[in-house]
Amino acid sequence: MSSENESRRVLIVGGVAGGASCAARTRRLDESAEIVLFDRGPYVSFANCGLPYYVGDIIKQEADLLVASAKTFLQNFNIDVRTENEVTAIDRHRREIEVKDKGTGRVYRERYDTLVLATGAAPLQPRLPGIDLPGIHVLRTIPDSRRIRDWIETRNPRRAVIVGGGYIGIEMAENLVKRGIRVTIVEALDQLMPPLDPEMAEPVARHLEEKKINVEIGDPVEAFEPGHDGGIVVRTKSGGGYPGDMVILSVGVRPEISLAQAAGLELGECGGLRVDESMRTSDPRIWAVGDVVETRDIVTGTWMLAPLAGPANRQGRIAAESICGREAKFRGVQGTVICGCLGLTVAMTGASEKRLRQAGFTRFKAVYLHPGSHAGYYPGATPIHIKLIFSTDDGRVLGAQAVGVEGVDKRIDVIAMAIQKGATVYDLAEAELCYAPQYGAAKDPVNLAGMVAVNVLRGDLPLADWRGLPHANAFLLDVRAPEEYARDHIEGAVNIPLTQLRERYGELPRDREIWINCALGQRSYYAVRFLAQKGYNVKNLPGGLVTYWGFYP
Amino acid sequence: MSSENESRRVLIVGGVAGGASCAARTRRLDESAEIVLFDRGPYVSFANCGLPYYVGDIIKQEADLLVASAKTFLQNFNIDVRTENEVTAIDRHRREIEVKDKGTGRVYRERYDTLVLATGAAPLQPRLPGIDLPGIHVLRTIPDSRRIRDWIETRNPRRAVIVGGGYIGIEMAENLVKRGIRVTIVEALDQLMPPLDPEMAEPVARHLEEKKINVEIGDPVEAFEPGHDGGIVVRTKSGGGYPGDMVILSVGVRPEISLAQAAGLELGECGGLRVDESMRTSDPRIWAVGDVVETRDIVTGTWMLAPLAGPANRQGRIAAESICGREAKFRGVQGTVICGCLGLTVAMTGASEKRLRQAGFTRFKAVYLHPGSHAGYYPGATPIHIKLIFSTDDGRVLGAQAVGVEGVDKRIDVIAMAIQKGATVYDLAEAELCYAPQYGAAKDPVNLAGMVAVNVLRGDLPLADWRGLPHANAFLLDVRAPEEYARDHIEGAVNIPLTQLRERYGELPRDREIWINCALGQRSYYAVRFLAQKGYNVKNLPGGLVTYWGFYP
Repeated sequence: MSSENESRRVLIVGGVAGGASCAARTRRLDESAEIVLFDRGPYVSFANCGLPYYVGDIIKQEADLLVASAKTFLQNFNIDVRTENEVTAIDRHRREIEVKDKGTGRVYRERYDTLVLATGAAPLQPRLPGIDLPGIHVLRTIPDSRRIRDWIETRNPRRAVIVGGGYIGIEMAENLVKRGIRVTIVEALDQLMPPLDPEMAEPVARHLEEKKINVEIGDPVEAFEPGHDGGIVVRTKSGGGYPGDMVILSVGVRPEISLAQAAGLELGECGGLRVDESMRTSDPRIWAVGDVVETRDIVTGTWMLAPLAGPANRQGRIAAESICGREAKFRGVQGTVICGCLGLTVAMTGASEKRLRQAGFTRFKAVYLHPGSHAGYYPGATPIHIKLIFSTDDGRVLGAQAVGVEGVDKRIDVIAMAIQKGATVYDLAEAELCYAPQYGAAKDPVNLAGMVAVNVLRGDLPLADWRGLPHANAFLLDVRAPEEYARDHIEGAVNIPLTQLRERYGELPRDREIWINCALGQRSYYAVRFLAQKGYNVKNLPGGLVTYWGFYP
Repeated sequence: MSSENESRRVLIVGGVAGGASCAARTRRLDESAEIVLFDRGPYVSFANCGLPYYVGDIIKQEADLLVASAKTFLQNFNIDVRTENEVTAIDRHRREIEVKDKGTGRVYRERYDTLVLATGAAPLQPRLPGIDLPGIHVLRTIPDSRRIRDWIETRNPRRAVIVGGGYIGIEMAENLVKRGIRVTIVEALDQLMPPLDPEMAEPVARHLEEKKINVEIGDPVEAFEPGHDGGIVVRTKSGGGYPGDMVILSVGVRPEISLAQAAGLELGECGGLRVDESMRTSDPRIWAVGDVVETRDIVTGTWMLAPLAGPANRQGRIAAESICGREAKFRGVQGTVICGCLGLTVAMTGASEKRLRQAGFTRFKAVYLHPGSHAGYYPGATPIHIKLIFSTDDGRVLGAQAVGVEGVDKRIDVIAMAIQKGATVYDLAEAELCYAPQYGAAKDPVNLAGMVAVNVLRGDLPLADWRGLPHANAFLLDVRAPEEYARDHIEGAVNIPLTQLRERYGELPRDREIWINCALGQRSYYAVRFLAQKGYNVKNLPGGLVTYWGFYP
């Protein structure tokens, strides 16, 4: 292994997911290299994604968050870890970095043959009035989480305001609720969980509200003001004022590029560091991995920032391969994410409809379905709300989003693998997945999603645009049972139950488009098939009333 | 849609998974066809896979097992369902079937344009002495399950013997235990769960024993004898005698081919009906689907019997497509199965090592690993024991088996999709799966399995054959901590902890192969990488002592 590099010095800046992976992998491939890992914080290799649960006291011990210590790195890998050592400059010409030992104040220089930047991302802290008030916290490091725990334990806050309704915001909401704190989430955009399409984020908001969390969307924060008893009032554009005994700022992160930028390395269009497929920067001696880089979205082909632990780890390994002279390519990011929300799980993989439109895609369709998490005849199944997006050119799966109580992660993971391998909706329909009644179904939700999409792709199931429904000039046919129709129905819809359709279809107009709905989209599909073969111009309301009313509750 | 077939008569024999799917799909594609569905039993479209749980009273109502009734078929699909009507002969020349109405005794004939055979499979009932004793049950139909429930409720059995330790046998064990019955499982083969490789079935046997189930493997049943109080004694080849107040026979099923055979349709080499990719038999007017057909194993390319509900459903749909003049191909079966075993889950997809060897494959390897079901730093993670089998030619994933408490179905489903799409172990390593700490890990078990396999494939991690270990002429090195080594170790193994290896490796012999172990295979991998680079001839004990002692407990 790389005998030509006998005395090579590999310096790595930043020791969490990407940096730590890169260091360990480099050692496994090259015993002879000298490897030094610098981190300005007190720890390396800590479990970033566990921080909200440490605040919530689900994870009890700070030590549990430490995946590997400096001692482990030294003993197992002969890697010199220097925490509380901040790299302050890169001298590319001399191939040296400048380091400040935060303990002693000493500034020193280290020569490198290979440099890896894994400087991560920092929480955004918008320059709003009052942003520096005590009690306003961000959560990115173990010291951050310790400060929030201390705040909770010493001040016993009754109310918290979370600014930003993304994944971290919602995970913090879950954990603060577990601590007995009343939570308000304030989100500037018109939906929670910005990576999702809005109609898939809607059930999450409703669920949080059922759990007594106050959710305020579409209302940007404008200022923080001192409140009573050392509290803070969060002021919003619409004039709202949300008082809290603490505030969590979770409005996103930005790549920590200052070091790279000062060294003149090429940046990308999203504000991250630009690297090639082997994670190499514009300087052939310098690699970069993790949240600091921007990466290709494998579905749309566009550049994106994806501050995710899984990809960061993979990038670290790939950089190590490349550093050690092996061929390795990072395939890009597909944006698989998951979030637990007080008993509900929401997850996605691939592109959202929103993102596809931003990237200029138009030749795709989406289907909705609401299958049970396992066979309906076995107790305990709960619905999974699924949106599947696919190319109308070739049926390729482009993205999936799912919300439910159980089995969400499984279905999204299967579809993640499908997207990775360029699978089509036909492949989903034909997938052979685990089936015993407590785990799945003879037609698993993944199969069903594929089957519905195949029907659409083949023209067997034309879809109505449910977003256009309030203004549709179509005849609305509701094929549910009369008692279901009586309970509630779309205004203007006419009820002919599926079971009577073969006798009564003559009542339907032949000169108008007919939009058919049922509760979930299955009976209406049967009706579509029947009426289409009888020569009617029919469309299905995808996902039925559950989808429609999910968005227009 | 097939206007050339205006008056086509489609007759379908057998109305459970495959037959019912075919009937409903045919209707959706062809409103004009006359569709008649015959079943000799009292129900169509019932949930076969739920029967053990109905016996266990997890599913409380027989009605819950009925996915769709004859009335539903008529009302929703205009399909004429005739239960208790047994098809007794096929007259291919006249294109007629002979049917016996079991209620009235009337025998009648029906003309067909298209015939679909979905006659299923019947439980094997070996012709052993005493096989007809009362209290010996099979479980295949709702009436079977009702008889067993009645037996339990009226006789209050204390002990049951289950003959056959496959999926149904184990599911029955779970459910009888729930009913407060003591269970003995008697299995002729040397392992439970015959589709698995033996070392992966071993943890299942141990788990069942911990749950107080008596597991007797490698001991074929030779006779059933009357015991005390109307009980039965199950006599085995080794001289054993296992008394039970009831016996469940679950020794497999055989395709119900008598009707097809009498009609002269071509049979396959495994005793099932031979069909082409569109599920058509040797008679172009006759299709066949479900447990009665044999199908291609997509991994080995060999024929197999795969009595599974998922594939049966897909075959039903594909036959319908083909019948209606659309192009459709059944891609074969990959053998994805899952079984719940009293809190443990065991699942597999693709080929086992056993099956590969039977099919003449030799160019493959297997890795073992035991990752947590989710990130270790979040409470509640439990180990998943994984065996991953891959081609050494191109890294293609050939099969996976997993046993654990949680998350087994998810990982096997992801790998099932990977196999379906011809993925390699590199793809598994690079999969981008859901990660929040309660669901997965930054390196998900699927990633880890891929990474270990990639290391093997690239030659970075030579594997020792753990089955040869008791007789190995290798130097055995145990790199665990001294206190772990002191607790127990492989006889003859020398302990140098990984943390001391860089100082002490001079103690190791240069003239012998060194087999390295730790607990799980990770620290030994680090040791392999170090020592290989120092010029030692090293191999890793795959999966560590957990794998080794799992098989040689």
